[in-house]
Amino acid sequence: MTTNHLLTQLPSYNALVNLSENLASQSISKMLDSDPDRAEDFVVSAAGLTLDYSKALLDRPTRDALLELAADSQWQAKVQAMRNGEAINATENRAALHTLLRASSDNELPDLYAQVSDTRSVMKQWANRINDGQLVGFSGQTITDVVNIGIGGSDLGPRLVTEALTPFHSNVSCHYVANVDPADIQETLLDLSPTSTLFIICSKSFRTEETLSNGLAAKSWLMSAGASTEDLKKHFLAITTNLEAAAQFGVPAANCLPIWDWVGGRYSVWSAVGLSTAIAVGWDNFSQFLRGAEEMDQHFQSAPAEKNLPLLLSLMEVWYCNFLGADNHVVLPYSQHLQKLPDFLQQLTMESNGKSVAVDGTPLNYDTGPVLWGAAGTMGQHSFHQLLHQGTRLCPVDFILPLTTHTGMLGQHRMLVANCLAQSRTLMMGRSAKEAEQALLGRGMNKQEAEKLASHLAMPGNRPNNVITMDTLSPSTLGSLLALYEHRTFCSAMMWGINPFDQWGVALGKEIGAEVLNLMSDGPSSKSENMDASTNRLIESWRRTVR
Amino acid sequence: MTTNHLLTQLPSYNALVNLSENLASQSISKMLDSDPDRAEDFVVSAAGLTLDYSKALLDRPTRDALLELAADSQWQAKVQAMRNGEAINATENRAALHTLLRASSDNELPDLYAQVSDTRSVMKQWANRINDGQLVGFSGQTITDVVNIGIGGSDLGPRLVTEALTPFHSNVSCHYVANVDPADIQETLLDLSPTSTLFIICSKSFRTEETLSNGLAAKSWLMSAGASTEDLKKHFLAITTNLEAAAQFGVPAANCLPIWDWVGGRYSVWSAVGLSTAIAVGWDNFSQFLRGAEEMDQHFQSAPAEKNLPLLLSLMEVWYCNFLGADNHVVLPYSQHLQKLPDFLQQLTMESNGKSVAVDGTPLNYDTGPVLWGAAGTMGQHSFHQLLHQGTRLCPVDFILPLTTHTGMLGQHRMLVANCLAQSRTLMMGRSAKEAEQALLGRGMNKQEAEKLASHLAMPGNRPNNVITMDTLSPSTLGSLLALYEHRTFCSAMMWGINPFDQWGVALGKEIGAEVLNLMSDGPSSKSENMDASTNRLIESWRRTVR
Repeated sequence: MTTNHLLTQLPSYNALVNLSENLASQSISKMLDSDPDRAEDFVVSAAGLTLDYSKALLDRPTRDALLELAADSQWQAKVQAMRNGEAINATENRAALHTLLRASSDNELPDLYAQVSDTRSVMKQWANRINDGQLVGFSGQTITDVVNIGIGGSDLGPRLVTEALTPFHSNVSCHYVANVDPADIQETLLDLSPTSTLFIICSKSFRTEETLSNGLAAKSWLMSAGASTEDLKKHFLAITTNLEAAAQFGVPAANCLPIWDWVGGRYSVWSAVGLSTAIAVGWDNFSQFLRGAEEMDQHFQSAPAEKNLPLLLSLMEVWYCNFLGADNHVVLPYSQHLQKLPDFLQQLTMESNGKSVAVDGTPLNYDTGPVLWGAAGTMGQHSFHQLLHQGTRLCPVDFILPLTTHTGMLGQHRMLVANCLAQSRTLMMGRSAKEAEQALLGRGMNKQEAEKLASHLAMPGNRPNNVITMDTLSPSTLGSLLALYEHRTFCSAMMWGINPFDQWGVALGKEIGAEVLNLMSDGPSSKSENMDASTNRLIESWRRTVR
Repeated sequence: MTTNHLLTQLPSYNALVNLSENLASQSISKMLDSDPDRAEDFVVSAAGLTLDYSKALLDRPTRDALLELAADSQWQAKVQAMRNGEAINATENRAALHTLLRASSDNELPDLYAQVSDTRSVMKQWANRINDGQLVGFSGQTITDVVNIGIGGSDLGPRLVTEALTPFHSNVSCHYVANVDPADIQETLLDLSPTSTLFIICSKSFRTEETLSNGLAAKSWLMSAGASTEDLKKHFLAITTNLEAAAQFGVPAANCLPIWDWVGGRYSVWSAVGLSTAIAVGWDNFSQFLRGAEEMDQHFQSAPAEKNLPLLLSLMEVWYCNFLGADNHVVLPYSQHLQKLPDFLQQLTMESNGKSVAVDGTPLNYDTGPVLWGAAGTMGQHSFHQLLHQGTRLCPVDFILPLTTHTGMLGQHRMLVANCLAQSRTLMMGRSAKEAEQALLGRGMNKQEAEKLASHLAMPGNRPNNVITMDTLSPSTLGSLLALYEHRTFCSAMMWGINPFDQWGVALGKEIGAEVLNLMSDGPSSKSENMDASTNRLIESWRRTVR
């Protein structure tokens, strides 16, 4: 295993601090104009994706220094340790082998690979059976709808991928229920028929509160429609390690697909957790999705640092956060099909890197993962882009742009592409008050008014952004895109010296949730000395209302 | 008109700077424990909403100082100026009278009120006709589906409110298309029938690129199904000020509902822009929605500062952003029906307050509007809450919690409530490494391992949050909730000395978008000396791909 470190102890750290003092006041557009090779040289392609980072707030010396920071962090040795199946998730003493889930072979870990490969065969069988209309419900009707019940990693990945690959959909419709709010399952079931609906319960532990509650609601919906206990096995599959609890619920072992402790929830769409997606798009497309990710894995593992997409994205993240003071990162997919990408990336990045101690437990005195947010373009242009252009905060942006459309509506798609490129350019260029004044005068405004208004129209510009393009949004490029951000997240964690694979911060909330639920179940009054006065008051106000 | 100011020039500003140095290290839970009245005294109710801010990082002296800041800012005079119809949107020389849209009377502005009232009558007629099945399409079939085509303010408001009020839906289904990505309209229309679908084109100027493109796509969909040009008027309404352009498109004046220059897009759901919602939930419910907002307006205008919900929320926003260094604000509605609330609030707050010059054009040397983000609970608990609990950044949270459910599924809803209260408490309490270690020892872990792991389980706590409850999510409480955030946004703008009603920052992107689109339409090569090298390269790569 490689050694751990703090970001601030890396030899190249101080050089970067010095560079940042100078760079914050540099002009991106001047760098682009004065360096004729920049527009070609700050572009890297791999696995169907092209990253243009020529509009980053980054010059060549800084890039060199960041690459040194990467070398200092021993990122390559750590990638290797991950791929070798070492327990790099040290606090849980586990490996992190999501890359194995999409590998087409693995000579180093033959036993685990055999398990993965076997599970893929089982997934394929289920997907094919369902897509071929061979699976029938309790009344003999063909299964036409699949509802995935899971939350967090058991929901966001398959939900995103299924929606993103809409043009590839099979005839079976897949739906997603996650929230413990009963409105979620109740309204989803409204449109479905119990005789033709299959549920997939995704919960590694088979103990997730939300998922079990929704599973029970599904069960009683089926039984109200006339299904017997015995019939349930025709309507439930499970993705879990807890066969016993699944059996108790009514899902026999033959309907359970395995998952392993070396697959984190937020890295699990490549596992049997992706079954609903495999059904939605058919097995061949799901295989292409895995293959696209594997291509990115190979690139990540073998490409030199200066050409390594995930590493470069990560270095920019660390640069903006730790040297230029950014607190957030914006992802703007210019594709309606990718509208849930920010939700997915929120979990991937913020659950992984929202940490304040190093791998060895040392409290950190620098920032780690930023807030990630965004929306599908062009929606945001008519919403929060105002703040991106004229707000007071540094918000580095990744634009994500498929260059073609599946709709055949080329003219309208061209507008989408034009808008994306224009936003990217505008963030960089800005407009001075002088230019704004000229524009106003050009439109016939009088000098005095134009002068007054110009400062409101002025835009600082110099707002860094990347453009990630792909020829088309396909199973393969989507797989590659998600793997890209997974590895970016990993690299940033390595720079920060943290463990991106645990999530201890969510445990206490669950414990306190159980305590509060207990108090709410007690009656008639629930004031507890173990609770703070505000929580006690809130429970009382709930009690008065539901009474 | 009242005078303008900078935040840093307000007399109470420096006192707050001094207070903040002390308060950042105070313990919220100790303040709550040592002040028996805090849990009652830091609670304010109005218009069906109750704000509990007892878990704010705020003590009584700070609250007093913030109230002085508010007084210094002359917020009440500014509210009055807004209500009086003064041109408080100074850069556009316009009033901002969204409150008039929901007023049940107005003696000060009788002419404008008459127009509002007339428009309400027209909205009511359309909504009733459609809900009564009296409107038929070109083949004589009853209209069963309505598609709202708009973007930004012409989309986010009605989309949110329609979804939030799902339990109140009529028999007519409303759908929303916004993105210029043609996949949006193409997939929406897949499920609909041209003979029974009505479109509402929402665009104040009738020039919004996205909206017109989608409108044209809708038109050609109808005509492909056999509608004649003359038939179109049976399938299109418009909300616009530009009757001429609407007529040219094919919407006669009789099918146009007005909107006024004193209604900003992001404040327009209360106007005819809300027509799709009025159809979705029926006119009576829409009236209740207006009424709820009006109640909040009356509270905002008349309640004293220390009991004023919008003002208090705004003071906390300014406190966290400008004195304690927060860069973002999190909104977590514990209600599946409110899952789009963060999207709506992103536009409301970030388009309004993402500004860097004062009303008079002075460049600001302090931060204005933060990044707003969030998701429906409990979804986020299995995603980004890790960062809220253990990340390195200050992320103040508003929890929003309806205390009852429309589903009848009480047990499962109780879990939702318990989770919300538990997250609120956990953010405040945290857990020390010592406590974590004790917990691990209690579970039978050996001393050495427990010591090692404890720092990873430790949670800093002291993370400020508010809980906003309502008895039930109804048209009225929803109206009140949106008005609450509107006025909060306004108050913060008044503290910051900026104009929350313009959005000049989006203009340049549109201009450059048109330039880029022109270049893309030229062939075969499009390199332009007016463009930067990166944009030229990206256009070329698009051209190569689509060729």
